[in-house]
Amino acid sequence: MPTTDAAPPGFDERLEAARAAGVILATATTQQKNDALSAIAAALRASVAEIVTANGIDLDNGRAGGLSDGLLDRLRLDHARVESLAVAVEQIVGLADPVGEVARGSSLPNGVRIAQVRVPFGVVGAIYEARPNVTVDIASLALKSGNASVLRGGSAAENSNRALVGLIQGALASVGLPSDAVQTVDDFGRDGANALMRARGLVDVLIPRGSAQLINAVVTESTVPVIETGAGVVHIFLDASATTEWAVEIVHNAKTQRPSVCNTVETVLVHAGAAERLLPPVLDRLAASGVTVHADDRTRAVWPDAVAATAEDWGTEYMSLDVTVGVVDSVDEAIAHIRRYSTRHTESIITNDLRNAERFLNEVDSATVMVNASTRFSDGGEFGFGAEVGISTQKLHARGPMGLPELTSTKWIVRGDGQVRI
Amino acid sequence: MPTTDAAPPGFDERLEAARAAGVILATATTQQKNDALSAIAAALRASVAEIVTANGIDLDNGRAGGLSDGLLDRLRLDHARVESLAVAVEQIVGLADPVGEVARGSSLPNGVRIAQVRVPFGVVGAIYEARPNVTVDIASLALKSGNASVLRGGSAAENSNRALVGLIQGALASVGLPSDAVQTVDDFGRDGANALMRARGLVDVLIPRGSAQLINAVVTESTVPVIETGAGVVHIFLDASATTEWAVEIVHNAKTQRPSVCNTVETVLVHAGAAERLLPPVLDRLAASGVTVHADDRTRAVWPDAVAATAEDWGTEYMSLDVTVGVVDSVDEAIAHIRRYSTRHTESIITNDLRNAERFLNEVDSATVMVNASTRFSDGGEFGFGAEVGISTQKLHARGPMGLPELTSTKWIVRGDGQVRI
Repeated sequence: MPTTDAAPPGFDERLEAARAAGVILATATTQQKNDALSAIAAALRASVAEIVTANGIDLDNGRAGGLSDGLLDRLRLDHARVESLAVAVEQIVGLADPVGEVARGSSLPNGVRIAQVRVPFGVVGAIYEARPNVTVDIASLALKSGNASVLRGGSAAENSNRALVGLIQGALASVGLPSDAVQTVDDFGRDGANALMRARGLVDVLIPRGSAQLINAVVTESTVPVIETGAGVVHIFLDASATTEWAVEIVHNAKTQRPSVCNTVETVLVHAGAAERLLPPVLDRLAASGVTVHADDRTRAVWPDAVAATAEDWGTEYMSLDVTVGVVDSVDEAIAHIRRYSTRHTESIITNDLRNAERFLNEVDSATVMVNASTRFSDGGEFGFGAEVGISTQKLHARGPMGLPELTSTKWIVRGDGQVRI
Repeated sequence: MPTTDAAPPGFDERLEAARAAGVILATATTQQKNDALSAIAAALRASVAEIVTANGIDLDNGRAGGLSDGLLDRLRLDHARVESLAVAVEQIVGLADPVGEVARGSSLPNGVRIAQVRVPFGVVGAIYEARPNVTVDIASLALKSGNASVLRGGSAAENSNRALVGLIQGALASVGLPSDAVQTVDDFGRDGANALMRARGLVDVLIPRGSAQLINAVVTESTVPVIETGAGVVHIFLDASATTEWAVEIVHNAKTQRPSVCNTVETVLVHAGAAERLLPPVLDRLAASGVTVHADDRTRAVWPDAVAATAEDWGTEYMSLDVTVGVVDSVDEAIAHIRRYSTRHTESIITNDLRNAERFLNEVDSATVMVNASTRFSDGGEFGFGAEVGISTQKLHARGPMGLPELTSTKWIVRGDGQVRI
């Protein structure tokens, strides 16, 4: 039963409209949903000037309000980024529709047949900050998986999100699907975010995306089931046997390719037995790309240009061209350090030692664990899921990069011929 | 990072011991875990007299404290029930170990290989009431799935649970696994239950089982992710075309075979077009087994022995030999009634109309939906999962009867040869 305390006037009605639209989406055909996605991609391209203009207002407000460079980068929509949004939506057209997929099934000894079938959640809520591409990603993935979506994108991206939700609603209506299936509650301000977290019975699952602070607030305050997506204090461990070139290229890629996102490395640990071999080329390469190295004393003994790491640095998600570097004496010490400081998002080991690779994969308790690859691959797009809903750092329901199946539930369908239980 | 406010002294230490034991269980072989399960089954049989004695104290206390017949039935452990517990544990030996199973996997275009592998959660918490069989079920299923378990079984079953946990810990130690892997926090009383709900970072998932009140308290107060298991206000709809014999036998079985459990029917809806044909034999059969029929006026016009249903009856989980009966004019009205009053656990339609059957299966938003079968089949044991963890009424992670795979998470394992993201 719906229970919402102190929802602002009109809020519950909007969520009930989303729920009613979700019932229609749940039985829409794959073709109808794909037509809507194609219409969204076309609308993004047709409205690119309008989107960039709306985004420009948000960027100006953000600069005036003192947003960091990292946040301004997340907020920015230029022509190229709108085009990649449209391409990502078109990729979703090509993905398999998870609704109706039979996950498991069998016949019981008495002839009763059971099947576990994928069904949409109903209404997916999202709370995020300053990242308007999430509006398009979540609305499109929710649509393909048969869900309505209710979005709270935050005041910093309010103009961008209003433009994007408007064009998505228009695209839905243009193919005969209910425009209520994608809603924003940005106009309710902070009250809307609070009401969304208490909308148990109206919203089936809530996905927070943004700062650790935002995610913690949603996780502890929400009575709606949450999928925690995550802050990434991501580690790379350079083992004693690491190939120098791989260490240099993977650390450089993981730190500098897009510093403002969650799968970017924040801490590099190096085995003492390889510190003198690996640290100079790895850190020279980072420094040449403008990275500030925060390091422990053992690292600074080998590479003196580093600034001294503070206690907080080891747990910091910089979202900027900064990295923390430390020397450890063993793979055990590396794993223990990661257990202590990691947000359990993504960690990678660079090694040629099979036993250490297997230990790292088994004992590091993170959503994605890697050997000899850049942490930047921990991403729904890279994994082939199309645009991603987020990267779950919890263990329930979904863990790691989420795609379409993660936006569905299941139901058991049981067919009998009058059987009773004996 | 572990955050627990106001945990009683010794509580965090016990959970940390469970977590450390869980790390060992996570890499235990299937053979080791099966040996432990066989030892538990043997210990249950060897200690049956001691268990029944301990349970007798709980039953005496329960009777003195005014527990209902339904709750006393849930609490009772006699020789036959201990034997079925041992048999259920032995069935788990025969079930496939979900740990290490590859759920999905592929090679990316650049040669990076990704695999989504089932891993244990770590520590599973359970809060339940007056039902000591849950102690054995959850500890055994957690063990087979590589998880430690922390159990809060409630004061009404305290003596039974102490005996059961003691013998399980002994069985673990007897095969060389850590006895800390199964813990009770009953001795911390209510503080222990509260601390368990706040043990985010120490407990990975919390499963409440019991009254709607208990479940609501856990769902709203827990900061640990919860799997909501459920109160069952279960419906059977007798459609106009229902075969009389199936209607009579299925309703009788669904109400009387074990009235105190959650998959027992509570409300029967009958299509007006079949009310005169179906109600007399269906209700005569129920009455002959001692069922009290609470009914609307249209039902009482056909079958006058019913008492008038109150407004509350339509949403009541009786857990006793009572049933609410009403007449509806269409399958739409039946579905609308179910949407309003159901706890979304299990519903069944008795019909010979294919279109109505499909509509019921698609449009009733419950964990298990059935055609022409008793709702008593909505059960992990009946579905072939072995002893069950509970029946989830939420949509996240697990829905419906839960078995071993529902007690695991996954992690992504990524293997490369120096690849970086372009």
